[in-house]
Amino acid sequence: MIKFKPPYIGAAFYPEVWDKSEIEEDIKRMKGIGINMVRIAEFAWAYMEPAEGKYELGWLHEVIKLLEKNEIAVTMCTPTATPPEWLTSGYPEVLAVKEDGTAYQHGTRRHYCPASPRYREFSKKITSLLVKEFSGYEAVVAWQLDNEFGCEFNTCWCPACLAAFRKYLQKKYKTIENLNTLWGTGIWSQNYSGFKHIPLPSRGAASHHPSLYFNYKEFMSNSFAEFARIQEKLIHKGTSAPVTTNGMPCFHRLDYQELFRTLDFISCDFYMQPGELWTYIYEFDWMRPFKRRPFWMMETAATWAGGLVPSSSYVLNKGALRAKMWLTYALGGETVAFWHWRAHWSGQEMEHGSVTYSWGEPTLAEKSVRQVREELDRSFELLSSTSVKKPKSAIHLSYPAMWVFDFGARSQVKYDTALQQFYKAFLEQSIPRDVIYTEAPVKDYSVVYSPFLPIIDEELLKKMKDFVLNGGTWVIGPLSGFRTADNTAHKDSDMGIIEDLFKIHVRHKFPLAGSGTAPVYMEWSGIGKTKCENFAVSLEIKGHGKVLAVYKNGPVAGLNAIVEVPFGKGKAVFLGTVPGYKELKAWIKKCSGGDICRAAAASEGILITERVNKDGTSVALVIIDHGGKGGKLETKKAMTNILTGKKVKKLLKLAPYEVLFLKY
Amino acid sequence: MIKFKPPYIGAAFYPEVWDKSEIEEDIKRMKGIGINMVRIAEFAWAYMEPAEGKYELGWLHEVIKLLEKNEIAVTMCTPTATPPEWLTSGYPEVLAVKEDGTAYQHGTRRHYCPASPRYREFSKKITSLLVKEFSGYEAVVAWQLDNEFGCEFNTCWCPACLAAFRKYLQKKYKTIENLNTLWGTGIWSQNYSGFKHIPLPSRGAASHHPSLYFNYKEFMSNSFAEFARIQEKLIHKGTSAPVTTNGMPCFHRLDYQELFRTLDFISCDFYMQPGELWTYIYEFDWMRPFKRRPFWMMETAATWAGGLVPSSSYVLNKGALRAKMWLTYALGGETVAFWHWRAHWSGQEMEHGSVTYSWGEPTLAEKSVRQVREELDRSFELLSSTSVKKPKSAIHLSYPAMWVFDFGARSQVKYDTALQQFYKAFLEQSIPRDVIYTEAPVKDYSVVYSPFLPIIDEELLKKMKDFVLNGGTWVIGPLSGFRTADNTAHKDSDMGIIEDLFKIHVRHKFPLAGSGTAPVYMEWSGIGKTKCENFAVSLEIKGHGKVLAVYKNGPVAGLNAIVEVPFGKGKAVFLGTVPGYKELKAWIKKCSGGDICRAAAASEGILITERVNKDGTSVALVIIDHGGKGGKLETKKAMTNILTGKKVKKLLKLAPYEVLFLKY
Amino acid sequence: MIKFKPPYIGAAFYPEVWDKSEIEEDIKRMKGIGINMVRIAEFAWAYMEPAEGKYELGWLHEVIKLLEKNEIAVTMCTPTATPPEWLTSGYPEVLAVKEDGTAYQHGTRRHYCPASPRYREFSKKITSLLVKEFSGYEAVVAWQLDNEFGCEFNTCWCPACLAAFRKYLQKKYKTIENLNTLWGTGIWSQNYSGFKHIPLPSRGAASHHPSLYFNYKEFMSNSFAEFARIQEKLIHKGTSAPVTTNGMPCFHRLDYQELFRTLDFISCDFYMQPGELWTYIYEFDWMRPFKRRPFWMMETAATWAGGLVPSSSYVLNKGALRAKMWLTYALGGETVAFWHWRAHWSGQEMEHGSVTYSWGEPTLAEKSVRQVREELDRSFELLSSTSVKKPKSAIHLSYPAMWVFDFGARSQVKYDTALQQFYKAFLEQSIPRDVIYTEAPVKDYSVVYSPFLPIIDEELLKKMKDFVLNGGTWVIGPLSGFRTADNTAHKDSDMGIIEDLFKIHVRHKFPLAGSGTAPVYMEWSGIGKTKCENFAVSLEIKGHGKVLAVYKNGPVAGLNAIVEVPFGKGKAVFLGTVPGYKELKAWIKKCSGGDICRAAAASEGILITERVNKDGTSVALVIIDHGGKGGKLETKKAMTNILTGKKVKKLLKLAPYEVLFLKY
Repeated sequence: MIKFKPPYIGAAFYPEVWDKSEIEEDIKRMKGIGINMVRIAEFAWAYMEPAEGKYELGWLHEVIKLLEKNEIAVTMCTPTATPPEWLTSGYPEVLAVKEDGTAYQHGTRRHYCPASPRYREFSKKITSLLVKEFSGYEAVVAWQLDNEFGCEFNTCWCPACLAAFRKYLQKKYKTIENLNTLWGTGIWSQNYSGFKHIPLPSRGAASHHPSLYFNYKEFMSNSFAEFARIQEKLIHKGTSAPVTTNGMPCFHRLDYQELFRTLDFISCDFYMQPGELWTYIYEFDWMRPFKRRPFWMMETAATWAGGLVPSSSYVLNKGALRAKMWLTYALGGETVAFWHWRAHWSGQEMEHGSVTYSWGEPTLAEKSVRQVREELDRSFELLSSTSVKKPKSAIHLSYPAMWVFDFGARSQVKYDTALQQFYKAFLEQSIPRDVIYTEAPVKDYSVVYSPFLPIIDEELLKKMKDFVLNGGTWVIGPLSGFRTADNTAHKDSDMGIIEDLFKIHVRHKFPLAGSGTAPVYMEWSGIGKTKCENFAVSLEIKGHGKVLAVYKNGPVAGLNAIVEVPFGKGKAVFLGTVPGYKELKAWIKKCSGGDICRAAAASEGILITERVNKDGTSVALVIIDHGGKGGKLETKKAMTNILTGKKVKKLLKLAPYEVLFLKY
Repeated sequence: MIKFKPPYIGAAFYPEVWDKSEIEEDIKRMKGIGINMVRIAEFAWAYMEPAEGKYELGWLHEVIKLLEKNEIAVTMCTPTATPPEWLTSGYPEVLAVKEDGTAYQHGTRRHYCPASPRYREFSKKITSLLVKEFSGYEAVVAWQLDNEFGCEFNTCWCPACLAAFRKYLQKKYKTIENLNTLWGTGIWSQNYSGFKHIPLPSRGAASHHPSLYFNYKEFMSNSFAEFARIQEKLIHKGTSAPVTTNGMPCFHRLDYQELFRTLDFISCDFYMQPGELWTYIYEFDWMRPFKRRPFWMMETAATWAGGLVPSSSYVLNKGALRAKMWLTYALGGETVAFWHWRAHWSGQEMEHGSVTYSWGEPTLAEKSVRQVREELDRSFELLSSTSVKKPKSAIHLSYPAMWVFDFGARSQVKYDTALQQFYKAFLEQSIPRDVIYTEAPVKDYSVVYSPFLPIIDEELLKKMKDFVLNGGTWVIGPLSGFRTADNTAHKDSDMGIIEDLFKIHVRHKFPLAGSGTAPVYMEWSGIGKTKCENFAVSLEIKGHGKVLAVYKNGPVAGLNAIVEVPFGKGKAVFLGTVPGYKELKAWIKKCSGGDICRAAAASEGILITERVNKDGTSVALVIIDHGGKGGKLETKKAMTNILTGKKVKKLLKLAPYEVLFLKY
Repeated sequence: MIKFKPPYIGAAFYPEVWDKSEIEEDIKRMKGIGINMVRIAEFAWAYMEPAEGKYELGWLHEVIKLLEKNEIAVTMCTPTATPPEWLTSGYPEVLAVKEDGTAYQHGTRRHYCPASPRYREFSKKITSLLVKEFSGYEAVVAWQLDNEFGCEFNTCWCPACLAAFRKYLQKKYKTIENLNTLWGTGIWSQNYSGFKHIPLPSRGAASHHPSLYFNYKEFMSNSFAEFARIQEKLIHKGTSAPVTTNGMPCFHRLDYQELFRTLDFISCDFYMQPGELWTYIYEFDWMRPFKRRPFWMMETAATWAGGLVPSSSYVLNKGALRAKMWLTYALGGETVAFWHWRAHWSGQEMEHGSVTYSWGEPTLAEKSVRQVREELDRSFELLSSTSVKKPKSAIHLSYPAMWVFDFGARSQVKYDTALQQFYKAFLEQSIPRDVIYTEAPVKDYSVVYSPFLPIIDEELLKKMKDFVLNGGTWVIGPLSGFRTADNTAHKDSDMGIIEDLFKIHVRHKFPLAGSGTAPVYMEWSGIGKTKCENFAVSLEIKGHGKVLAVYKNGPVAGLNAIVEVPFGKGKAVFLGTVPGYKELKAWIKKCSGGDICRAAAASEGILITERVNKDGTSVALVIIDHGGKGGKLETKKAMTNILTGKKVKKLLKLAPYEVLFLKY
């Protein structure tokens, strides 16, 4: 453990609600079980500024000094998630408004509108002050903006938002004629006579126009990002410590590519259960390639997660907490921080699990926390001198895609589920993969997959064209490319300029779901017969190309389901339907070109992560049973588990949730 | 195919959102596959009147001329379902209001209030103009008012409605004392001190008074009808072309007897799935006897129906589209029109199926459309010179009955389901039947069934009395006659004057549903033992009469469940309970007096429709497998299938969804 | 049957909606079948005061005189549940407001706000008048306040409530600092700057602070109680007749300890089904010990209960009505009153079952009513000279506990269900028990159980300490004592001063529910192994004590689950988890110390109630098959069934729903 350096085991800490003597005890206890980072102050505005303009920061200085003295690093937060009562009482225009037109009121959290000019002012003032006061501490190793943007709601319907939304559209579309044209408002005579008449998409007699809704989602997402950026700039001006905010992708549905654009690293809060530890791997696989610095898990349950998640808790699954923690460190994270250190004795989250009980004694998480601290100390050098081996495969992740499926498209696709199912085909076969945003560079990958990506804009298409020209394989679909950047269909063909570029043509397209219909199958060359799901597209090759799969029955029997088009040194592959999972797996394995770990093999549910040194040489493996069932591990050579310091046999039986850090 | 004459295969067409060159292409394509009618302009107000008082109709003249030139008939629509943005921005008082008191806003459709005086003015102006401009075209064969009245909502809570509702009640009840007396407002001290204090039935601490709610539903239904009639009068003044509007009974819950009173023919939109084609037969069976002209199916899915209906689509059920189309023509319709010709490239209904894709190529519906066009051409003469043989049995359908069960009655009856289940007993036994409104003449039937008809008012009773006196059989119940026209109970007996007229008496009445109770059975003379469902009534014969069924067990064991009362030359039969379905079928078969087709017999799921010429002689049979499973057909004589021109054997095996048009 | 004396068979009667001749007929019919009490006028305000200040009470005098003449007792009601239309039209500020901010409107019932000063004035005026006019009648044996307080809603969000709530908090907490401290508002910076800024807990971006919500529920409950007390005082001033109101515990969720504090007896409305007659026993078991006078069942279904309860009705379960009635009399009630005498011919409750149909003839309830009347006459002397034998065991029931679980606690406990399940362990073993409120005296019991009782305040703790010191056994838990009176956690330990008093310590505490986790078991000394449910607590003994159960597996394997602490002459037992039901039953049987009826034994589902005379000697048994399956009864001696006057054998087979009243 090096002072104020990762890897961190951290926890959220609320000294503002405890007596001084308890705080001292708590810090002693933290140190005792190996906590070396605390997150602080994100809900403490009422204690920093108990009345307008009356600041009280002495208590916070004291706490940070005490932490610093005890060699515990600090993540300092801006407190804007919880405006004090005097602020919303005095300036009710800062309150966010619900779709029914009524404003949220004091008594919970996140009830402010991110577009409120007044709130932005208050937010600037408190942020500036905090930076001035606290940027000098050595212990303050990072800053967090606000808390969980978009968690309680991610849409606001207040007059400020309405005004800002109209400005936003005016800036984006220039003229109302242009907007009418690009959105196709002519359907149902929706044509607007001016930007000042565009509504927020509420109180519809039917559902609103998908282009209106899509732009509103984009606007709201940007509004949160804008709000964040105001604080970020002030902090970056006053300190060199890195800045982040804590995401929560499943709830927020904000565009993180935008939200984190100028932030230094990505951190997220995850409360998935021990029975689905694989979902942490998915999340870490997109967080790792996102930013240049290692990611943080800023919150996770030490025991259980209150009412947020059904309480199949970590205390009842022996070893699961340790496995969850090690998944973070193994896959490129440098921090696991718990929410929270000590259970609240009051308020909405009293029942939420924690590292210590409200009365101060450690919970059942203690043992695992101590163990991982010792293991981190033992493996520190190896961990910090290596990184995860760069994979050959990448899968696109897109928030605009999510919005398209969230709202407008009736294709029965639940984006998150569909993408994670696609992703699982890699994980279950131990094929290394990154999950990347559409702006990410792709040149170091061999294969890039773009499933469920309705909007492929010109910029992305240009990048992917270069990628293919230079030898890459681009897998497009299922259900990709069929929408413009304004969330309309293309007029001239299903996939617009993609069809022109690769000389393919979507001839038929129809939904497959629904009871009372016979299943449609395709014959997949070299893979076999598989059931088609969700949507079926028939593909014509207009130039050169190879048919990979043909529909066997139904109305498009004999037509192409999957085609491959050579292009430059590479190729584009079009998936015209969602294949059966087993066959998809087999095909992805073929595509991956043997990019799997050769040093070891293990039963399903056991993750093998290859760690390489700076010149790319594989030097170690982290083995984690995330499935919770244990299994077998076979390594090529006998290796040493540096968590225990002992040599291990080449053929091993692993206990449930076992973790090994093996060195050649 | 005769120019501008039915039978039509039609489609909704939206030239307002396409370029001129595409429109020309589209019309060429329509003609190519046999479309001979398009419906036009029902959502095009923003293009007709882009700013208040600024009219642009040139584009529409051009389109209609082009259609006329191509011998495609036109159904011209008034565009009032979609007020342009300038109208609702400038006159927000036209917006309908939700039960929570907030107004709908621009961005969807049907957001206007039908009672709004201002909106009625605008509606008159645009209708008058359209009639003036377009009534001269030979191609314009029909007019449609608005689009799907009541689809998005069928209740409005705006100040204009409140004022109109009070006026409506004043006109109907004259004095507030009379209203208080007839409604029985004394329950819960609901007595009103004046019409000006009667609320719309919203914001109740508990459910509102059933008489208030019933009158409100009637008022709203009439309000839509009144709105429609304003347009209808203007059109009838300017043209001799027939006027209709497109209903959607399952959604609208408006009184079509009233809505269509002065309209020339009935048209409806149906999106039921291939797995339930029998429901089309049900709908056609009430549409056929309703008006003097043949009915139209104004909208139906060519492929699938967007998000409106789970997408078990017509493209995956080979032959189902053709069967659906032929059901329409066989059962008395003259038009099948698709929604819509070409998929939208923008807006709320982008995913909805269509005849051609948004990019112009035909969808998988093409083949069936071409085939039916050819078949219509081949069978045209036979079809147009014959009509469906008039059945001996009729079943009452009533919107007020629906409202009673929708709201006030806690008898666990879902009206639509209950009525269709009753209806099915006829269909499954190939007993010809009409479904008729309560105002329809009955003298040509032998048996009239009035199930689930709580309100039997004096007018209906008088008509039915004459019917029975003249030899008819009237089947009353289950669950009929127990409410006054004001939706209260009768005070002196369960069935009021019906009991006096037929000298019967309901002695006991109680619900049967509920777990934990033993089933109640009745012994049905000549039918057998059957389980009683939903409600049980015990019936006493006060004059002459015959007991048809007696309860076997439970608290009314030994009392009468079904009685028959001779009256004049006919008889009234009272069903005191909902019998088991199997026994109900057997009994209905007995009642029908052998009124089934004698020329052929077929497996279940195959409809045989007898077509007669003007003097009533049976000359042909239309055979349609609507069940989708195929089966056997046996005809008395060898006949000719005029769809193919070939003789068919007397014993045939039919493929799923097969259609034959057999001539003796 | 003694004039104007219990036992009563009663019914609600609405003469205001019937003609005079019908009223006379009805009273004759009542008398004929044995009704000797009617409840009257609770919804008749519009008839008493048809316009403001214009009173018409003649009709009511006439009805009461007629009833008195016919020796039918009267329960006179205040009509405040249904303000007339002129009142709410003229004074809309009396209307209660929904959480969304809109006011309820006329047309239903209970739409007034109990805190409205204006409504309280109107309520006083009408109550005073009624007392003045009607207290002189011999027939008026009781008064009922309003009707079903809290039935339609038990929270109001109007400005009057907001103001009153703030006053309420100010009175309770004195200073805002004190409130902030006791509630722990520091979580999420919720700290209030003044009482005038505290909101009603609506429109939260997330859920509101549990202390705010808890206080709001307490306030609202007290607000109804205050409203009731205003009327109660006026009535008590004018008459010596006892005063009550009709509760409905499952819906109201008001604190009946408070509501009934100054009322003379408890009455409730119950509509549970024949299949769950055991729930009546539960209700009667808390009503009996509550007040010094016998309780009344003020409403129950004679046949079925409209839409309120699925209609598995009493008419289809032969004998169930009689059994329900006898349960009331046997367990300490003196009145069974039906809702209602005659079915309404109009309004919201037309479908509700009744003693006679709307047209006046008796329903299928008639036979049972006549029979019970005869049986009461026969057993009158025995019944009135005896009372239910006082049990040794008591179980605590608490409305504040219900509120804690209703809202704030995420422990997956549904309070009503959990408590009734605990209670059932007594009933199913025929262990006599009282269900008591926390203010009830406990000194006459041997064992008091306090399960699911989060708040054990100082007053209760003091009483229970004395109880234990004097030899009582106090069973605490599961899930008790973990909240302060302000609905926060204790800071220093899980159970606060309880831990100090009994020298025990909760070391670990965690939820057990959730899929994907292995079950946790405990070994219960002398009982066996049992599965732990819902929550697990590990208990340390700091002083003397005995371990009763130890966890067998899971994270607290080896730690104590149940401990017993000797204290004074008695002991405290702490249940650290919810045990399996079978084992809980066995243990409760041990705890009860053999306090079961020794005079007879019967099959499950048959209730044996021992009746004692004034000196406590057992003189009779009431035997009721509430399970509806019949079974065997064995008595020690041959006894006489005074309902029939016949001797019965010592070994008997009982028919379903059989009732016997056996005398030694």
